[in-house]
Amino acid sequence: MNTSYATARASASAGSVLMAVAKPSQRDLRFTRALAAQNAAWTFEGVPADARTLVRHCLLDWIAVTLAGAQEPVTHMLAEEAREQGGFPQATVVGHGFAASSRQAALINGAASHALDFDDVNMSFTGHPSVVLVPALLALAEARGASGAEFMTAFVAGYETLCRIGAAVAPGHYALGFHSTGTIGTFGAAAACARLLQLDADDTADALGIAATQAAGLKAMFGSMCKPLHAGKASADGMMAAQLAARGFTGRSDAIEALQGFAATHGPDFDPAAGLQDAPHGLYLRDNLFKYHAACYGTHAAIEAARHLREEHGIEEQHVRRVTVHTSAQSEGVCNIAAPRTGLEAKFSLRHVVAMALAGLDTAKLASYSDASTNEPALTGLRDRVQVELVRACGSMTQAEVVIETVDGSILRRRHDCGMAATDLGAQGARLNTKFRAIAHPLLDQESSDEVLDLIDRLEDLPDLSPLAGLLACQPVRIRRH
Amino acid sequence: MNTSYATARASASAGSVLMAVAKPSQRDLRFTRALAAQNAAWTFEGVPADARTLVRHCLLDWIAVTLAGAQEPVTHMLAEEAREQGGFPQATVVGHGFAASSRQAALINGAASHALDFDDVNMSFTGHPSVVLVPALLALAEARGASGAEFMTAFVAGYETLCRIGAAVAPGHYALGFHSTGTIGTFGAAAACARLLQLDADDTADALGIAATQAAGLKAMFGSMCKPLHAGKASADGMMAAQLAARGFTGRSDAIEALQGFAATHGPDFDPAAGLQDAPHGLYLRDNLFKYHAACYGTHAAIEAARHLREEHGIEEQHVRRVTVHTSAQSEGVCNIAAPRTGLEAKFSLRHVVAMALAGLDTAKLASYSDASTNEPALTGLRDRVQVELVRACGSMTQAEVVIETVDGSILRRRHDCGMAATDLGAQGARLNTKFRAIAHPLLDQESSDEVLDLIDRLEDLPDLSPLAGLLACQPVRIRRH
Repeated sequence: MNTSYATARASASAGSVLMAVAKPSQRDLRFTRALAAQNAAWTFEGVPADARTLVRHCLLDWIAVTLAGAQEPVTHMLAEEAREQGGFPQATVVGHGFAASSRQAALINGAASHALDFDDVNMSFTGHPSVVLVPALLALAEARGASGAEFMTAFVAGYETLCRIGAAVAPGHYALGFHSTGTIGTFGAAAACARLLQLDADDTADALGIAATQAAGLKAMFGSMCKPLHAGKASADGMMAAQLAARGFTGRSDAIEALQGFAATHGPDFDPAAGLQDAPHGLYLRDNLFKYHAACYGTHAAIEAARHLREEHGIEEQHVRRVTVHTSAQSEGVCNIAAPRTGLEAKFSLRHVVAMALAGLDTAKLASYSDASTNEPALTGLRDRVQVELVRACGSMTQAEVVIETVDGSILRRRHDCGMAATDLGAQGARLNTKFRAIAHPLLDQESSDEVLDLIDRLEDLPDLSPLAGLLACQPVRIRRH
Repeated sequence: MNTSYATARASASAGSVLMAVAKPSQRDLRFTRALAAQNAAWTFEGVPADARTLVRHCLLDWIAVTLAGAQEPVTHMLAEEAREQGGFPQATVVGHGFAASSRQAALINGAASHALDFDDVNMSFTGHPSVVLVPALLALAEARGASGAEFMTAFVAGYETLCRIGAAVAPGHYALGFHSTGTIGTFGAAAACARLLQLDADDTADALGIAATQAAGLKAMFGSMCKPLHAGKASADGMMAAQLAARGFTGRSDAIEALQGFAATHGPDFDPAAGLQDAPHGLYLRDNLFKYHAACYGTHAAIEAARHLREEHGIEEQHVRRVTVHTSAQSEGVCNIAAPRTGLEAKFSLRHVVAMALAGLDTAKLASYSDASTNEPALTGLRDRVQVELVRACGSMTQAEVVIETVDGSILRRRHDCGMAATDLGAQGARLNTKFRAIAHPLLDQESSDEVLDLIDRLEDLPDLSPLAGLLACQPVRIRRH
């Protein structure tokens, strides 16, 4: 094979000639390469203490939502597909009691973790980081016997590269119709895996190029099984990009900024400077947002505002004459289904989840979003009194104001912004612990849950992630290393 | 699993709600669904006799170019990746003596068949049809034991659906920077596999939706290994789209024309009517173009014109003062590398291949495009006398005019258009036979080559394609059916 790789490297120069033809402006020329160099330079020692805590939070939250999503139909279908295609048992398929090839595991676990839309978010790229990063990294770490510290370093590298690319193509890329979790997520998974595979800057740039030409995912598919598929595909395709780059597969080192490259073909407002400048709080990871309501993130501010008004004023269903939700016009086509008929649709309905919050239903519980409860007359009666007013000037779906007009004529108002990450990491950890235990309970017994929490606590000292991954299978499996 | 599928179907309704939100115009509303219905309606009896001949031509040509491409570094890397990931031996990896899962075989064989850029073309979508259709269909047919007639029907269905979608987004999609072989090719592979799996119109529409949200590939990657990767990915991802749709995986039935759907996000000039109208000659397959020069198709008209002038006027190198090639401005960034340094670059250099043709070199032979011959002084000296003039008014890269100014002051001109498919199918078959034998010779012995030709002749009567696929392994392999 070595001869082939040598030939491959030799023929790579064609890329640079075409690059010369493409004539990118000097300002943009080194964007991909600059990110690749940063990505390759991450060391475990360079990851600050609070960022290490945040990696543990992301992993814990990912495990919770993946256990929950593992039993969704979309996950069963992908697992069944993998069983039919076959593959070496290299990595755990969460909740399914078998191991698959590392790429199949990334695909299945990625889709599982995004299936319920209960996973974490970063607004820099309007997408879900952990569901593309963790499936690829965990599978690759398991297949190769990588340590907890290597996983953490690669996660941070991938997270930052992902958000930098996202920031450079925001807001136009997502607004145009691309599901950033799928598109930008492919770069993130490639970058994370490139770091785990210890690729240098040149090979990492190639990996980003191979990711660029595979990146896909349409927002128009929201509401179908393709939305979670995007996360799985981004994870698996990004992993393949890094694996191929490690073999000497050639892409080009400026695939994002090139003439007719990824940025030019996938958005109207590429701004490399925005991707190269420092993250708002030094690291994008510090702005990671977790979900505590099992609905679209665009509904969370309204839920929080409604819940607060209910608690503060002792509001009950019979007190409500009319409710108005003011939120960003971006919600249209994302989470503004007027009259949902299924539990899945309810998660994308501002009117419905606000009615749930006012009725005192537990919006954190997955079971609250059943088809039956969505059509329950008392709830739809309350929903009929909720109206949504979209405000063009409100730029972010993380902000909302809820106004309640009571039957006695009072006007109650509450604003909420759920776009700010928690600063009290201890409190955040406790809240995620509660979320994990609530979800894990039926799938993992008490002892296994305790063990998962303990392993995550000691993540940076784990020589090998297989014991942790193995617990997530929920049934014993045998893993083969390559 | 049946329960899960039922649940999956039930939750599919979310897609239709979002569709209502998306409000596509009435005119566009049924585009994807209309193509899906046509795709599902193809029967073997409905395939005209000349189209059956053309399917045999496409398959023979695909086998030739895939045997040649199987030993390229890009193919070795993908084959090695597949060996590391593992998979049931369901389908032959051409030229590598092993079988892989059907999806891995589609990926590897797809890349192999496009690796040398010597494969067939259809200008309706400015792309390469057989390298996305055959790898998926052959692997799926082999894995499932489908017959030659089923293969042929599915090939025609996929070919027509592919070109219809391509025609609807042409010319803007390709001009914007998308490599249609990768993007539109994903739909083609999905459609072909959907027909082989006998999906009805509804499931086929879902398959096209699942394809739409995976479709990717950037023209900016031309000159790197990503170009052939696009064909393999389109083939494998399209196959997965059909396989998932067969399980009840939900997409949406208007993914191409939807608001922010595939067409809106991937081009400026979607025209569904262009995709729904009859093909110029009843079937797009009738406009399939084969390559007889092992270089980018955009150079073929110039090669043919130069070759003709050389033969007609007995032109030799020392007679040439200056050569001017007039061709479409579309060649810029595709096949107009001024001073190629490698054999790969030479294939994308109008100046170089015209010099080759004038020097009497065999432009059909793969060995003619070596790094050494590209830098041979006599040839580069001739190349220095060739200039390219790009003509905005010339809309197609299939047309060129070559003007030779001789040392004695004569002006010789010749135009050529290689955008017209052959009408003499017997002659075309003979020419493809020659191409196959020239390429197959070192890899397949005389007896095996004869056997391949015989099996293709009898394609529609073959109960099973495994004997044919097996011959292409070039070494014995064992196949497992699922």
